[in-house]
Amino acid sequence: MSTVTGTRGPYAKTAKLRARAIEAAIDLFGTAGYNGATLTEVADRVGMSLTGLQHHFPDKDSLLAAVLEERDRRASAGVPEGPGVETLEGLLRMLSESEKNPGLMELQCVLSAEATSADHPAHEYFQRRYSTLRNQAVSGFEEMASRGDLVPGIDPQQLAAMVIALVDGLQLQWLLDRDAVNVEAAVRTFIRTFIPAVR
Amino acid sequence: MSTVTGTRGPYAKTAKLRARAIEAAIDLFGTAGYNGATLTEVADRVGMSLTGLQHHFPDKDSLLAAVLEERDRRASAGVPEGPGVETLEGLLRMLSESEKNPGLMELQCVLSAEATSADHPAHEYFQRRYSTLRNQAVSGFEEMASRGDLVPGIDPQQLAAMVIALVDGLQLQWLLDRDAVNVEAAVRTFIRTFIPAVR
Repeated sequence: MSTVTGTRGPYAKTAKLRARAIEAAIDLFGTAGYNGATLTEVADRVGMSLTGLQHHFPDKDSLLAAVLEERDRRASAGVPEGPGVETLEGLLRMLSESEKNPGLMELQCVLSAEATSADHPAHEYFQRRYSTLRNQAVSGFEEMASRGDLVPGIDPQQLAAMVIALVDGLQLQWLLDRDAVNVEAAVRTFIRTFIPAVR
Repeated sequence: MSTVTGTRGPYAKTAKLRARAIEAAIDLFGTAGYNGATLTEVADRVGMSLTGLQHHFPDKDSLLAAVLEERDRRASAGVPEGPGVETLEGLLRMLSESEKNPGLMELQCVLSAEATSADHPAHEYFQRRYSTLRNQAVSGFEEMASRGDLVPGIDPQQLAAMVIALVDGLQLQWLLDRDAVNVEAAVRTFIRTFIPAVR
């Protein structure tokens, strides 16, 4: 497709155009959904012709793949690692931060819902994503349980699904009505109930 | 539009066609989303021409309104009323039941996510719906608190948002991977934590 010469000019231009198209698609997929968006609309938003955009993204699926890759990059940027209570504090801080960028939250909300259909191009991506998130949370909670930081009798597997569900569901309510819920405060109450060491 | 004569024939036929179109739309909106669906696809699914369907539903918005009305009717059919622990038991039974009809769950999941956009035709519907759900839950939890059924120190307002969020988020995970989570068991754990009288 585009001739990447290794020199600055054409490559930088291509990267810039791709980045602008991805940005427009994040916004459009987050509002109209992947199903409701068209490549033509993305092209319009970045002031390109459809043919020009297809030079970089031949179809909507290839643009979706780039959007999900970018989403992962941004989402993982601020994520704290490790199994401790500090990690949970980091997660709570991240929840407050993410309200400054509702576009990414909307993208997650709309695409994950659409992707519940088995024939959606991001179906397997979201299956894998949730499975990975649950597994990471389970490891963290098991580690906490072994240190005695978890209240007795709670199943780490169930707790992992619950905390992820709570974040998704509260963000949906927040996106619908920003005065109605305080996502970070509610998730903090939840975590504190099962892990008393969290303030 | 259609001549409702009050006699059996034409009225019954109209009602039947409307019901079939609504059924097809519930299915299609739940997979492709409202944004991704077209009236033509709905017409195809019920074996009508677009013009024939438009006789009953002139545009996609009027079909959406009928779908949401039908959704409300079905969703409220099994909902237990009153503020007691029995109400919560009823809710938990309903969660198990709803897994037999994933179509309605998908519809709720996809439409509510799409409707986070302020210009979605169901935006206000879902704002009202969540506000009503939270208010009903708050009343119930306040009543329980006054009887001493709620653990001390928990804010009924926050608990209401949390339990609704938990159901939505767990159903999303279940729709993506039905072996991954047990919605009813996880919601039971949550409720029991804050309302010990629930078994």
